[in-house]
Amino acid sequence: MFPAFLDLASLKAAYAGGLTPLDLVEDVLARIAASSDPAIFITRTPADDLRAAARDLMARAPEPNSLPLWGVPFAVKDNIDVAGLPTTAACPAFAYRPEQDATVVARLKAAGALVIGKTNLDQFATGLNGTRSPHGAPRSVFDSAYVSGGSSSGSAISVASGLASFALGTDTAGSGRVPAAFNNLVGIKPTPGLVPNVGVVPACRSVDVVTVFAGTVGDGVAIRKVMDGYDAADPFSRKAKPAALPASKLRIGVLAGGEREFYSNAAYEALYDAAIARAKALGAEIVPFDYAPFRQAAELLYNGPWVAERLAAVKDFMASNADDFDPTVRTIISGASKYDAVDAFEGLYKLEALRQKTLAEWQKVDVLMLPTSPTTYTVEAMLADPIVKNGHFGRYTNFANLFGYAAIAIPAGFDADDHLPAGVTLFGPAFSDDALASFADAMHRALAAGMGKEKSAPLSEASKVAEAYDGLVSLVVVGAHLSGMPLNHELTGPGGRLLKACRTAPDYRLFVLPNTTPPKPGLIRAPGFTGPGLAVEVWKVTPEAFGRFVQNIPAPLGIGKITLDDGSQVSGFLCEPYAIEGAREVTEFGGWRQYIASEKSKG
Amino acid sequence: MFPAFLDLASLKAAYAGGLTPLDLVEDVLARIAASSDPAIFITRTPADDLRAAARDLMARAPEPNSLPLWGVPFAVKDNIDVAGLPTTAACPAFAYRPEQDATVVARLKAAGALVIGKTNLDQFATGLNGTRSPHGAPRSVFDSAYVSGGSSSGSAISVASGLASFALGTDTAGSGRVPAAFNNLVGIKPTPGLVPNVGVVPACRSVDVVTVFAGTVGDGVAIRKVMDGYDAADPFSRKAKPAALPASKLRIGVLAGGEREFYSNAAYEALYDAAIARAKALGAEIVPFDYAPFRQAAELLYNGPWVAERLAAVKDFMASNADDFDPTVRTIISGASKYDAVDAFEGLYKLEALRQKTLAEWQKVDVLMLPTSPTTYTVEAMLADPIVKNGHFGRYTNFANLFGYAAIAIPAGFDADDHLPAGVTLFGPAFSDDALASFADAMHRALAAGMGKEKSAPLSEASKVAEAYDGLVSLVVVGAHLSGMPLNHELTGPGGRLLKACRTAPDYRLFVLPNTTPPKPGLIRAPGFTGPGLAVEVWKVTPEAFGRFVQNIPAPLGIGKITLDDGSQVSGFLCEPYAIEGAREVTEFGGWRQYIASEKSKG
Repeated sequence: MFPAFLDLASLKAAYAGGLTPLDLVEDVLARIAASSDPAIFITRTPADDLRAAARDLMARAPEPNSLPLWGVPFAVKDNIDVAGLPTTAACPAFAYRPEQDATVVARLKAAGALVIGKTNLDQFATGLNGTRSPHGAPRSVFDSAYVSGGSSSGSAISVASGLASFALGTDTAGSGRVPAAFNNLVGIKPTPGLVPNVGVVPACRSVDVVTVFAGTVGDGVAIRKVMDGYDAADPFSRKAKPAALPASKLRIGVLAGGEREFYSNAAYEALYDAAIARAKALGAEIVPFDYAPFRQAAELLYNGPWVAERLAAVKDFMASNADDFDPTVRTIISGASKYDAVDAFEGLYKLEALRQKTLAEWQKVDVLMLPTSPTTYTVEAMLADPIVKNGHFGRYTNFANLFGYAAIAIPAGFDADDHLPAGVTLFGPAFSDDALASFADAMHRALAAGMGKEKSAPLSEASKVAEAYDGLVSLVVVGAHLSGMPLNHELTGPGGRLLKACRTAPDYRLFVLPNTTPPKPGLIRAPGFTGPGLAVEVWKVTPEAFGRFVQNIPAPLGIGKITLDDGSQVSGFLCEPYAIEGAREVTEFGGWRQYIASEKSKG
Repeated sequence: MFPAFLDLASLKAAYAGGLTPLDLVEDVLARIAASSDPAIFITRTPADDLRAAARDLMARAPEPNSLPLWGVPFAVKDNIDVAGLPTTAACPAFAYRPEQDATVVARLKAAGALVIGKTNLDQFATGLNGTRSPHGAPRSVFDSAYVSGGSSSGSAISVASGLASFALGTDTAGSGRVPAAFNNLVGIKPTPGLVPNVGVVPACRSVDVVTVFAGTVGDGVAIRKVMDGYDAADPFSRKAKPAALPASKLRIGVLAGGEREFYSNAAYEALYDAAIARAKALGAEIVPFDYAPFRQAAELLYNGPWVAERLAAVKDFMASNADDFDPTVRTIISGASKYDAVDAFEGLYKLEALRQKTLAEWQKVDVLMLPTSPTTYTVEAMLADPIVKNGHFGRYTNFANLFGYAAIAIPAGFDADDHLPAGVTLFGPAFSDDALASFADAMHRALAAGMGKEKSAPLSEASKVAEAYDGLVSLVVVGAHLSGMPLNHELTGPGGRLLKACRTAPDYRLFVLPNTTPPKPGLIRAPGFTGPGLAVEVWKVTPEAFGRFVQNIPAPLGIGKITLDDGSQVSGFLCEPYAIEGAREVTEFGGWRQYIASEKSKG
């Protein structure tokens, strides 16, 4: 039996238990047939093709779970190419049949994943609500009166309703996040440039990002890592090092009073406050910040020249096929013709001026946490006022790609009637995608609201995201670098943080090095010796600061590995043996600070 | 007596010898009065104001040379604000009288520099030749039939003819470099974002850069450092760490055959080849590269939507004052109205696609060296065909700011008749400004062609640029990390380079550490011991790679300071003393490689 929600750990367990991808295919086909929402897919992979793909996988990688995504079913938003299936962008007249997979799809297939179909979307990915499609509006999995969110509407619903383990979306304004919020899913929105866009129908090419909908942060990140990697064929693809975030005491920016806007949705506001409380309980420092420059940038995306990128993407087609557009989408895109190149550059100037303002806010925080969407609406309400109400959904999303941030949308629980879910999104600086994931995962686990429509499904331990690699090196200091000692500034200056005070293993001896200024000790390991263990401190610094620090250490000192009293080995101060010949041993004091205090008390 | 060319070292020497800024002011006023070129200045600082500024300086900083630019006269391109003088951009009808200095001018004044006047330019900085001004065309200081180069025409001529120690230009396409080439000057073009543009009339705001004309690279860099620094009021100002370049064996990209274009100017081509030979003689590795993607980007600047930035800068003024424009400038700027926002974004897409192509070229080289301008023309020839011939000047300049590079234009000597000078420009990655300077300075000194019109003026030793800090850490390796040894990849993997092979001081002993895989030695210093010294290698790695390297070294090894046979102390491998107890000593072999070879020969 496959689980109701097809998260990676559950699926792997099913395969490990003897089920096969061919079994999975039959199960998924049955689920799709039984699905109550007719608007999820635009094109499905023909059943026999799906069976053949499963057989091919089992032939090329017979061992269960022998590829990272072995037999994992996924859905693809229909603005991303899958060879052999038409790409329509939810505009039938626009359809073409790509010969090649999009780079991301090719990488996922190579990792063993199986495409089950192409999903519905707000046409040309223009919208955040899911109603702008000739294929109908997918519905919230929790109430079919409500919108699914968009533009990646069908992708989110396919995952939330258990038809696929994950699905690909695209995110320009917030299309990979808003539908996650409305369907109790995680939405992974990579930093622009991290995941290549080759084979994706552009919305706004300079800010489009391929995203992942999944049940857990861990699943989403694992999938994103399969898709990652520079592709020179994408003009906006970037090679970049991962950016680190502090592993503890994360400073989380939250909306200050004046910028709080939930469009009268008190339940969503309460869920945002509950998320803040949860973050605090997890050890974060909550920092209200000024959202205004972010909001002003968000407003530029649709009320500014970037909408011309949407026109650039379809202008030849629109010239001949204006009647084939969804009326709202046509209104938005054709409105871009009023912008000239001067407007485009003036928009850029505004954005860069706002970016400078955001830098002052980023001084105060490590990440931002905002409501993914401040409210939700019924399909009926949305259709009655499609541009204004869609705009509400983007209030806290539209700035992210313009500023080049990483973002992860996570569930934030259900409203008071346990009826509709909300979400919050964590935003980090460019390429902090991995560093952001561990706190996002911890937040999601602390919520315990299941995955998708399975509100009581447990989040597997296997998908837990390990504590963020903070990019830092641990360093044991023994003498003049201890807190309050004369050289401590060499650690605090480049941003080092004290991790803990502890002792070395008992077989270390401490000596006073003659003729050192400030006075310094020499620590020597003497296997077999049993002393008190020396009091030391463990500091964390960046590898670069560590490198410069080591470079500046004068003989006879150096950096090797110190064994601590818990048996761990951590980089720390060594001393060349010649230097302690004839030197005074002070091991008995139990530490350099204690020895110094004793000397001082002598006057 | 003040020197004919007012470079900083000569001026400082004159002040140290008893002359005062007030003497300087009188001397400069006399030089200006005697100048044969009437087109250099648009507005001069009134003589009494200049005298008052000198007196103010002497009052606030009485000690000669007590400020970085104490009493240094400079000229300011008339698109940069100086409080109290009109800013015209060479369009009298556009004139306004700023109340505040541009940020760069304020910083220079604070450092003791004295503004002597506002210089002529191609109107609105639109041109590379110097003829597009109602104030006349400044002329090459070497032949008044020839163009000065532009758009920073008057600024370059003021320095080359000894009226100022340095001058500010602006550079969008190449305006801070081309006039340097035509007047035997250095042109420092900072990385976009390094020097703030607050108080500068925009040409293309997203790619405008304030530049320095000076006699030497050292002077130019010293002046640029006074102007540096983030200013949040400039949307494009950036905080960034300096980027490093190798301190030796620089890989210099030069034009490959198919991309060589000198518009039949064989003298300029010969001077470019001579510069390549000079670079090789200085130890550089010469690497022909494909200039095509750079050229294609260069062509976008005028034949693409970026010209709309020029329109954005003046559109309100142009609407009411079209007749007040230079006709060529009007033709160029008004031509921008044909571009719509779609064109603007499509231009961006082209640029980013070209950037990806350049990355493959940057894999092969550390810096690029190109002709600053491939040819020069008489004023008459330029006026007869102003757009095409101006375009020739920009062939090797226009890409630099679009791609965000640092550039330094240096003199490349005179043609066969010793008549007209040419230049070459060195380009480095963003924020390599400082790293680029030392090689540029070495190239300039190797040329020995004086400064400006003073073709035999010696370049002072004081202005010599120290060898670039390459940002690297030296590391002595002793055993398994030597070239060809099993762990050498830990150095080469993160880009380490072998600096040299050498020996330690004689008081080191070498031991075979038991139970190490691969086999490793332990090096111990034993003051008083006299051995052969051990053969070691010095490698250079980044601080970050060094930090990670140290972090991964297992006990009993570590990194401290090794004394080499030349007495220098360099970071390198140490060993904890307990580990060599009972270990075999192999000092007699003179090195680990020799010991290993001996063991192997035993079979």
